[in-house]
This record gives sequence, structure tokens and C-alpha cells, in this order.
Amino acid sequence: MSFINFVDYAGTFAFAISGIRLASAKQFDWFGAYVVGLVTAIGGGTARDLLLDTTPFWMQQPSYLIITGIALFCVILFGKQLIRLNNTFFIFDAIGLGLFVVVGIERSIEAGFPFWVTIIMGMITGSVGGIIRDILINEVPLIFRKDIYALACVLGGLVFFVCTKLNAPSELTQILSAVSVILMRVIAVKYHLSLPVLKGHDDIK
Amino acid sequence: MSFINFVDYAGTFAFAISGIRLASAKQFDWFGAYVVGLVTAIGGGTARDLLLDTTPFWMQQPSYLIITGIALFCVILFGKQLIRLNNTFFIFDAIGLGLFVVVGIERSIEAGFPFWVTIIMGMITGSVGGIIRDILINEVPLIFRKDIYALACVLGGLVFFVCTKLNAPSELTQILSAVSVILMRVIAVKYHLSLPVLKGHDDIK
Amino acid sequence: MSFINFVDYAGTFAFAISGIRLASAKQFDWFGAYVVGLVTAIGGGTARDLLLDTTPFWMQQPSYLIITGIALFCVILFGKQLIRLNNTFFIFDAIGLGLFVVVGIERSIEAGFPFWVTIIMGMITGSVGGIIRDILINEVPLIFRKDIYALACVLGGLVFFVCTKLNAPSELTQILSAVSVILMRVIAVKYHLSLPVLKGHDDIK
Repeated sequence: MSFINFVDYAGTFAFAISGIRLASAKQFDWFGAYVVGLVTAIGGGTARDLLLDTTPFWMQQPSYLIITGIALFCVILFGKQLIRLNNTFFIFDAIGLGLFVVVGIERSIEAGFPFWVTIIMGMITGSVGGIIRDILINEVPLIFRKDIYALACVLGGLVFFVCTKLNAPSELTQILSAVSVILMRVIAVKYHLSLPVLKGHDDIK
Repeated sequence: MSFINFVDYAGTFAFAISGIRLASAKQFDWFGAYVVGLVTAIGGGTARDLLLDTTPFWMQQPSYLIITGIALFCVILFGKQLIRLNNTFFIFDAIGLGLFVVVGIERSIEAGFPFWVTIIMGMITGSVGGIIRDILINEVPLIFRKDIYALACVLGGLVFFVCTKLNAPSELTQILSAVSVILMRVIAVKYHLSLPVLKGHDDIK
Repeated sequence: MSFINFVDYAGTFAFAISGIRLASAKQFDWFGAYVVGLVTAIGGGTARDLLLDTTPFWMQQPSYLIITGIALFCVILFGKQLIRLNNTFFIFDAIGLGLFVVVGIERSIEAGFPFWVTIIMGMITGSVGGIIRDILINEVPLIFRKDIYALACVLGGLVFFVCTKLNAPSELTQILSAVSVILMRVIAVKYHLSLPVLKGHDDIK
């Protein structure tokens, strides 16, 4: 297994765990938790592939389903102990996000789209899974309110674009792009950075 | 009209009724109730067809829209009396589910996918309509918490796979697969079977 | 810029504003508000293009992203004052809706679908954006309960169909169809018309 595969699977595992843990807080049964975990892990890439009109990636090999199954098994078995690994998961999640963004950008470039579309596809790949997860558990999507999540994806896309314009080798481009996503997430969470909130206009409804 | 068509339409009718009744509990207007009923009936097949990259089935003939219209008409006219037919609807719903699963599997096999994808497509065909219904009425999807719904679809898929491996005639395969879904639903509801619930981790949010 | 383009962009702007304002009432950050505004503006056309199996329109030119950015900027800058322009936005929104319906119908005719599919595609183009917006802010979709929204889209579709059958010139057909949507919206809101509500069956759940 190559390093890139390892990171892809680790990211999938971290995304799946995040879905399963939130589902467990809502008293979902095992199967429901599995579905929520799976959707969290593959939702973004599926949305991207539908928009790009290609076969969704997880329909081409069963690894993603299996990894989600392992994630469910771990939560059932180790539940409470897992919670203490919060920081570990955050790092996985951030690394997964960085990689998902790069994969999303690569796929859209292959499909022949201009750079501004590829940046959006990177963001969609990274963040739509979490949005669907929050819809399924009937919460307002977290990423709309906290922690510079989607914006980190956009930053990764811009870094990718600049590197490409500077003719950087593609491996370097991918690494710099992913690292910028990861760094921005780590910094945002560590220093509680977030975007300004729009002032409420509750009176208009 | 062939028997398979009758069952397909009866299942559509039962799924539409389930959407319309839940919409009425939320004070939707007639049109809103119609849309929720329609989405419940065709949502799963539409998701499947988008993933398989074929034209959604309901865009090829208007029967499904008409059946949903009849379902709305029945609820408007007979409202309260319909409720006493709960068991009848449950049977329709279970039969429809069994058939939807078989149709979903058949379509994915035609599209050339391996068996584990076809099982998922059977499950998606059977259960995504109900998930979208619950999202539209702003509830946590019922199937994640109750009654072995999605798992019955998976069982039907496994029966289909085993029959195929044993070279059973395709009609027998379809019937056994659908019947296994229906039986599992009936047994689950009759004996209040359900999957274990993941222990809540409310403290982690 | 042609007149049709102006109306398209004005409609997009009005739809984006409606999403951003509702997001601000939910304390979304700037980026979250932008995404909700964008989804409100392009969600319907995207759903239509996925169903018709063509590349989503907003991936072909960046205008829609830019217009949504301008809308966000206006809400940040002028917030409270904008609210007094409610009627202006309602007119934009109604005009945008009329145009979106016509565009949706045109695209489906080009794709070779029968009239009843094109009417549904017109409705989907006009109303799915608002439905996704309401799901993202975790509310029951407004259009299911109020103001003859989706039905106005259907009326526009029927007018389009009748004009086509009567061999009316295509510009006239488009204008009459759009105007009928706009008028129906204006009348419905002005006279508080709405469809009957289905009587609640809370006892059945």
C-alpha cells in the first residue's frame, strides 16, 4: 500500500468515526450509525463525481465500505476510550481533509474544468460529507458556523493553483496544497479562529 | 397489466401514502404533501439512477406521478378512515420495498456492477425515499433508529446473490429475494426486533 | 448584456440574498452564509442538470459565484437597510422564478423530454434551491406550506405548453410563461392565497 493510499484510508476512517460518534449521540442503531459514518466519509466525493458525471469512486472498489465497517466496530468495542483520542482523530480528520481536497482538484482537472471549478470541487469533496452527516442527524451543519473548515479547502485550492502556475512538480503541488489545508485547520482550531458571524436579522422572518 | 407492474404500482402507492400522511401531520398544503409523497415513492430509484448514470425511471413514463396524485386524492377524501387500514399499508409498503430492492439490484447488474454494489443499490432504491421524506419534514430519518428496514434490503440482496451463484432461474431469484425482504420486515415489526442502539456519547459534542 | 441575461442575474441575486438573509438569522459565519446563498441560487438548476445528465450550468461560467459574492457583500455592508427593500426583493425573486422556470423548460425540451417532464423540470429549477436552503438552515421547507410557490411554476409550465401547441413564436411563449409565474406569485402574496392544508393526523405517528 502506497503512502497516498494509507492517508486516503486514514482520512476515510477519521471521517467515518466522526459520523458514527455523532450518530451515537442521537441513539441511532448500528446500521444507522454505519450509514451516517459512510455518508460522512464518501458523501463529498460522491457529490463531486455526480457533478463531474463520472462513476462515484466508492462504486469501483469496496475499501471504503470496509473501512467504515471497521470504524463502526471500533466505536462499538472501544466507545468511551476512543473519546480520549480526540486529538488523534482531529489530526486524521485534518489530514484526510487535505487529501480529499487534493483528490477533488485532481479529478476535476482531469475532467477538463477551469481552475475556479476545481477549487470548488476540492471544497465539495472535503466538506459535503460533513454537511450531509449534519442533515441526517437533524442539526444545522457545523461547518457553516465554526472553525474555518470550508475556507481551508479554498486555501488549499489556491495554493494548488499558484503552484501549478509556477510550474512546480505535481507531487510538490499536491503536498503543499494538502499541507496548507491541514495547517489552516490546526491553526484555526488551536487559536479558536473563525470567520465573522453575520448579524442576526431575526425580525425579517 | 402484468403482476410485476401491479406490485410496482401498489408499492409506489403505499410509499406515496406514507409520505403524504407524515406531511399532513406537519400541516403541509396539498402541493407540499404531493411533493413529499412523490419524493418518498421515487426518491430511492432516482438516487440509484443518478449513481448508475441513467435517466431516472420516472422521467420515462408518467405513471408514478399519477399514482401519487391518486394517493393524495385518497388521503384528502378518506383521511381518517385510511388510518384504520394501517396494516394494509404496512403490507403494501413491505411488498413495495421487496420489489424496489429487486428492481434496484436488476438495474445495477445490467449496468455491469459487481454484486456488492448491486446490494447497495437495492438498499438505496428501497430506503432513500424514506430518508428524504424525513429530511423534508425535518425529522431524524426513522430508518436509522427502528425496525430493521435497511438491513432487510441487505438481506434481500444477499439472497439474490446466493440464488444467482446457485444458478437459480431469474424469476425464482427475484421472488425469493423480494420475499425475504418482506418476511424480515413483517417479523421485525411483529416481534419488535431492532438492532442494538449505539450508546450515546453526548459528552463528546 | 442582453435583457434575458440581466433578468437571469437579477433573479440569481435575489435568490442569493434570500439565502444569505435566512442564514444570517441562524448566526452562520460569512462563508456559511455565502454557501447557503449560492445553493439557494443554483440548487434548482443543478438538480435539473443532474437529472438531465448535463454539466451543471454554473460550472460553465463563474458569473453565478460572483453575483452571490456581491450579494453577500451587500448584506454585510447594508444589512438592516436592505430589509426595508423587502418588496423590491420580492419582485426580483418573482421575476427570477419566472425566468428560472422558462430556462428549466427550455433545457428539458432540448434534451428531448415530453412536456410533462419539462413542466416538472421547470418546477425543480425554480423551487429546489429554496428547499435545499431550508434544509441547510434546519427548517421545514417554506414552499410546502405557503404562498403557492411550486404551483406557480406548474402554471408557467402549462402556459408554455399551451402556447407551444398553438404554435406561438418562441419569444412570446417564453414571455407569457414567465409572466404567468410572476403574476401568480404576486397575486398569491398580495391576497394571501394559499392551498388548503391537509388536516393533521398527529395521532398516526
